[in-house]
Amino acid sequence: MPLIVEKYGGTSVANSNRIREVAAHVAHRQRSGDQLALVVSAMGSETDDLLHLATNVANNPPERELDMLITGGERKACALVAMAISDLGVPAASFTGSQAGFVTDTKHTNAKILRITPNRIKDAVAEGTVPVVGGSQGMSVDKDITFLGRGGSDTTAVALAHALNADVCELYTDVTGVFSTDPRIVPEARCMKSTSFRELLEMTANGCPKPAMRAVEIARTYNVKLHVRSAFTWTPGTIVTGEENMENVIISSVTHKIGEAKLTVSGVVDRPGIAAQLFRALADKDVNVDMIVQNVSSKGVTDISFTSPIDQLSAAREVVNMMKSKLGASGVRTYDNLARVSLVGAGMKNTPGVAARMFETLAENGINIELISTSAIRVSCVVKAEHAERAVAVLHSAFELEKPPHERASLR
Amino acid sequence: MPLIVEKYGGTSVANSNRIREVAAHVAHRQRSGDQLALVVSAMGSETDDLLHLATNVANNPPERELDMLITGGERKACALVAMAISDLGVPAASFTGSQAGFVTDTKHTNAKILRITPNRIKDAVAEGTVPVVGGSQGMSVDKDITFLGRGGSDTTAVALAHALNADVCELYTDVTGVFSTDPRIVPEARCMKSTSFRELLEMTANGCPKPAMRAVEIARTYNVKLHVRSAFTWTPGTIVTGEENMENVIISSVTHKIGEAKLTVSGVVDRPGIAAQLFRALADKDVNVDMIVQNVSSKGVTDISFTSPIDQLSAAREVVNMMKSKLGASGVRTYDNLARVSLVGAGMKNTPGVAARMFETLAENGINIELISTSAIRVSCVVKAEHAERAVAVLHSAFELEKPPHERASLR
Repeated sequence: MPLIVEKYGGTSVANSNRIREVAAHVAHRQRSGDQLALVVSAMGSETDDLLHLATNVANNPPERELDMLITGGERKACALVAMAISDLGVPAASFTGSQAGFVTDTKHTNAKILRITPNRIKDAVAEGTVPVVGGSQGMSVDKDITFLGRGGSDTTAVALAHALNADVCELYTDVTGVFSTDPRIVPEARCMKSTSFRELLEMTANGCPKPAMRAVEIARTYNVKLHVRSAFTWTPGTIVTGEENMENVIISSVTHKIGEAKLTVSGVVDRPGIAAQLFRALADKDVNVDMIVQNVSSKGVTDISFTSPIDQLSAAREVVNMMKSKLGASGVRTYDNLARVSLVGAGMKNTPGVAARMFETLAENGINIELISTSAIRVSCVVKAEHAERAVAVLHSAFELEKPPHERASLR
Repeated sequence: MPLIVEKYGGTSVANSNRIREVAAHVAHRQRSGDQLALVVSAMGSETDDLLHLATNVANNPPERELDMLITGGERKACALVAMAISDLGVPAASFTGSQAGFVTDTKHTNAKILRITPNRIKDAVAEGTVPVVGGSQGMSVDKDITFLGRGGSDTTAVALAHALNADVCELYTDVTGVFSTDPRIVPEARCMKSTSFRELLEMTANGCPKPAMRAVEIARTYNVKLHVRSAFTWTPGTIVTGEENMENVIISSVTHKIGEAKLTVSGVVDRPGIAAQLFRALADKDVNVDMIVQNVSSKGVTDISFTSPIDQLSAAREVVNMMKSKLGASGVRTYDNLARVSLVGAGMKNTPGVAARMFETLAENGINIELISTSAIRVSCVVKAEHAERAVAVLHSAFELEKPPHERASLR
């Protein structure tokens, strides 16, 4: 009998009707002969509602108490889902992260799983009961309740699937799978039949919901097959495995991320360790740095540019100004209202011409590139935020992502 | 340093403002040198809201899952209260019932405490941290989360006060103490300075909030001093101890309970075991029987009357009709829309004339008595429901309960 871990996100269990629908699916599937273990997120906006309550009673709520509060959301949802399944005649039982055997470190609000001893979950499955585990939670080695952070239910599900040696980990959400780009921007966006862990990891932060990066990392490390699919249409979605180019795809998606800012420090003395000093200082002030580009040195001086979330621009600027004389820099320029647009595809590493066509496409459409950064399976360009959606649309079309891979013209 | 267990009911922590006010009281008191351990109920109507959700997703929610769901209410409240206290600079930490060491039996929705090993609570108190324990919950010997039932937070508080050997267990609510009767019916109702466990146990079910009977039983068994008081006025309330007649009181209160029905089975053959058969049959059908009166036998036959909650009248009638021939009964009569009015006072057992004056008072006011039942410290009369509030008022006045005990005329 196949063993499947099903994870339901917040929108999938947002209200009683949704919970009943999920229960009906689970009961039907269990009766059809599959063995199931469930992981559920908090209902709809519950996590935000709880955080809002916390800010109403305290200016600086202790993180230990925040975890006690927030994990209650997933716990409530897992009890309700277990009730709804039982009510359809299929035995089900809810388990907190602690009861499910999730042991974490003590880093409250963002704890890491140290180990899982899912004996109660295994017993439940063995006796035909559907276990329903509260997502994103565990008990620390200090016996305190911990939260794994936003998106932590995906992590719970993937880690549980590994611990149970499940056949697949199905991540249910409110979209039908992973798309070639955000369907709200490009209506022709294509739901991919399959993709790879590496590609998914490069598709950061566009509008379309995707599994939490941390969960995908774990899935990649332990080779847990994922299936990203919809709890609204219940149609097959996107399979994610370690195999690349399963569809012989060169490019799989275009993603974008707005809210970026760029800082350029010019005239920096080009000697070893100079970049390290700058980025250590930024890290010490908790400034998130995304892309870093250092231009080729000329006459012993160089320009260093990096991007940060726009809300950290002033903190970043402060650090840079403090470091300016130490770096021997001649100037600092900042640019806000930028966006990053990326092409992702495991096939591109063997295909010359992807970056070239990307730059050409943007140029033909009058979109200037502020910064370029690449990895083996991704090319990212920073452009003005006002051009981001248009950039996504023209790239999606230029690379024919609306077509199934075998129908696309090959790249030169 | 005195060690005090403070329990806050649902109205005391109903919203953010209330939680902040409770936190301010606790922080002030802890700074004044008292050692505190807190127990909190779920916020306002949270328990009802959660139950409502359960009925939306399942017709017959399993009790294990109900407990997982409902105990989330107290857990949320204890996290928020701990945050609010911490925010005022006094260290505080929340604990679930399980973390606080409450081990229960496996009777879900109405579990009994088997033992308490409150090591984490003791450690917290010793290091100057205010522990805030989720009320009405524990972990069963099967490692499942259990709910102690409605009003269970009082039970948690009293049991914890015993386990910690606390000086007093303060039960905070939205009224200023235990009243001589329901102040909404008799505005002159007096807040008692003190009363005894036994008296409190006899004052069942009138409108004025009082500690849960089960908690009072535990307090009596282990001699835990209670202080019933208000989290709105913060004024001293009613002290409850094992000492009776601390104020030299004969009568302490008038209580009433509406929604009663009476069944009279007449012409029953008067032989040993006949009543046992009837009440065993009623118990087997889960009919709650409150007062039982068997009239003196005449000519070998007797009448048996008993009261039940009105919503169980039809079930009771069905049982009685089934048993009729077996009992040799000649008739069954039912009366709905009744109420019980009781006088309670530990002093009455040594004071003749209490019952007499009660009956006289009711008669003078044209209120007919349907049934009488007494204990050592209580006299109860069943009257028509429409007369209940007037009965309470005239009895309160006749026994001068609005006055401090020493100013009352003595009873003949």
